[in-house]
Amino acid sequence: MRNFVFHNPTKIIFGQGQTPCIGPETAAYGRKALLLFGQNSARKHGILKQVTESLEAVGLEWVECGGIKSNPILGFVYAVLELWRREKPDVIVAVGGGSVIDTAKAIAAGACYPGDVWDFFCRKAVVTQAIPITTVLTLAASASEMNCGGVITNEKNQQKYNLMGSPLYPKVSILDPVNTLTVPRNYSMYGAVDAIIHLLEGYFNGGDRRSPLQDRLVEGLIITIMEAAGRIFRRPQDYTARAELMWCATLGLNGLTTAGIGGAEFPMHMMEHALSAIYDIPHGAGLSIISPAWMKYAGRKSPAKFAQFSRRVFNLDKGSLTATARAGIKAWEQWLARIKVPVRLAEVDIPKSDIGKIAQNAYGLARVWGMKHYSVKIISKILNLAV
Amino acid sequence: MRNFVFHNPTKIIFGQGQTPCIGPETAAYGRKALLLFGQNSARKHGILKQVTESLEAVGLEWVECGGIKSNPILGFVYAVLELWRREKPDVIVAVGGGSVIDTAKAIAAGACYPGDVWDFFCRKAVVTQAIPITTVLTLAASASEMNCGGVITNEKNQQKYNLMGSPLYPKVSILDPVNTLTVPRNYSMYGAVDAIIHLLEGYFNGGDRRSPLQDRLVEGLIITIMEAAGRIFRRPQDYTARAELMWCATLGLNGLTTAGIGGAEFPMHMMEHALSAIYDIPHGAGLSIISPAWMKYAGRKSPAKFAQFSRRVFNLDKGSLTATARAGIKAWEQWLARIKVPVRLAEVDIPKSDIGKIAQNAYGLARVWGMKHYSVKIISKILNLAV
Repeated sequence: MRNFVFHNPTKIIFGQGQTPCIGPETAAYGRKALLLFGQNSARKHGILKQVTESLEAVGLEWVECGGIKSNPILGFVYAVLELWRREKPDVIVAVGGGSVIDTAKAIAAGACYPGDVWDFFCRKAVVTQAIPITTVLTLAASASEMNCGGVITNEKNQQKYNLMGSPLYPKVSILDPVNTLTVPRNYSMYGAVDAIIHLLEGYFNGGDRRSPLQDRLVEGLIITIMEAAGRIFRRPQDYTARAELMWCATLGLNGLTTAGIGGAEFPMHMMEHALSAIYDIPHGAGLSIISPAWMKYAGRKSPAKFAQFSRRVFNLDKGSLTATARAGIKAWEQWLARIKVPVRLAEVDIPKSDIGKIAQNAYGLARVWGMKHYSVKIISKILNLAV
Repeated sequence: MRNFVFHNPTKIIFGQGQTPCIGPETAAYGRKALLLFGQNSARKHGILKQVTESLEAVGLEWVECGGIKSNPILGFVYAVLELWRREKPDVIVAVGGGSVIDTAKAIAAGACYPGDVWDFFCRKAVVTQAIPITTVLTLAASASEMNCGGVITNEKNQQKYNLMGSPLYPKVSILDPVNTLTVPRNYSMYGAVDAIIHLLEGYFNGGDRRSPLQDRLVEGLIITIMEAAGRIFRRPQDYTARAELMWCATLGLNGLTTAGIGGAEFPMHMMEHALSAIYDIPHGAGLSIISPAWMKYAGRKSPAKFAQFSRRVFNLDKGSLTATARAGIKAWEQWLARIKVPVRLAEVDIPKSDIGKIAQNAYGLARVWGMKHYSVKIISKILNLAV
């Protein structure tokens, strides 16, 4: 076990009927809020109304700012920062999934920084201060509701990069599974895939070769997510399955499973960011395409951990390490097909001829993340396994 | 999954060489510290010296106060509260295991309360304010380093009761596994048993009958603790095993595995507290005696969860639920015997004739904890299974 610091101060209020807690909880951080939300679902399904009534009940003022799309963009962040400077709210209330919360984090850091907010994403500046954020989560996937990172796409140069910093932990996140009952089936499945890949990045790419506790936590979370996702696939209104998926997704990237593993690389995310930056496909869909391809590449190089994954998650043992590893990777790909998420580039209309361009884009992020051993050539090789 | 609030603000600094972080971390909370420690081991093994040098390096003043024994007593808390009022330190630095940290919590709450600190333990008062606490952990067991509870024995009436309150989360806890390398074998094993029973109380006694995620987290933690304890039993100097046990024990009662299970009863602890209150035996030794007895009682009433425990932790399946449940309970008792902790009252010289007195004492705590269905008769029946 490697040395680590674990400090996650986010307060989680979990369960049905908890959405109206957002007003009193937010009131602790100021008198005027910036209320961020996405396209239209939070309004359509009455979540936004519950939030504004709750803010009103405690006498909070707010400025509304909706329309954040998935794969949120830097242009939107710049626009809201202008609004911020005019309106000077004290606190940000983010109502949505990872896209909305990540946008909130970029604004929260940018509002306390005199330079260009993109500096944080290029590692030219460090987040030392941020406006407090509270959230009402509406999609189980990113864990942004309980971590200090966020991803934004610079739409001008198609860079999908991330910022991080301990001031960005949300102060409070309301996780009411009822708010996810209306998420369409495909997006629910993308969320489940995203959560599983967060767990697998650390599992397969941790710095310590021995991490028995973290392995078991990851395996337990993945099995639970797969079971819950299967139930949601069949019956989207299953509250218990929604609740299990929601809490698993939060624990999937809140620091718990990576504490002690000596840091982890995120190669699947590195490649996926290129896909969603260029083609604007859903992040989870990109991960469901990239993950079997990356596993085939990495499983050949070091089959032991993949064999463990096969045995413990899929209950498969084919005798040899390599055969067992292959069986698990195949089972993973088959599971993705069963929940009807794409597993090939062609399924989202990305032609093989674009692989060079995608690899160049991904390599840009590999450099920012200190993963230069993923050369353009290797990335291309992996992408070719997704054709 | 039931509704819950999860908010654990303790900062964990984990790993070898981290002890000297205590000075700079504590300096954030004041200029004068009360330095609490136990009998002699922290001094003997040079841990205390590292702590005081680190406090000195950042210019902190401190008042030393050692001698806390295991099963810490109210009389000591009263005495230190007197000292507190004279010296007025800003912060408490607790160097030790659960006994020292629990004592720190009682003092932290008592120093901000005009009444009798025992009121918190009898549920006559609620902890709304506390002096900040930082800790350097020297024993993997109680998880007090990352939770908001503490247990103290009122030696006058042999009540071993607990206090709780969110102001009691330590601000920072240093978990350096090197500091546990010198813990004697028996106390190391008692610590492992304590950590496992914390996990099992929620596993067997949660309010929600369906908790697939929490079950898997608990099972993964228990298997890891058992493996690590076995390695420590054979080779006390095994750093990695010490590290794994240390972090597992912290996660064993920091709120993670009980979030969403709808609250949990702690019947094994309720009965054990009577044993260590009356006979002053180590808490973990009391739990290793009580746990097989309680499992035999509870496993008969509802074998399903015990059968799951057998299958998943011990890889045992005997066909029927009852036979599988019995096999797991037997395997648990055999494991305890293998690590040489007591499994019968006679092994710690408690005569069968004392059972009535012990049951009366335990029932007092059952009432405080709202578990009156554990009548004196039932408690006696369970204790008779430990003869």
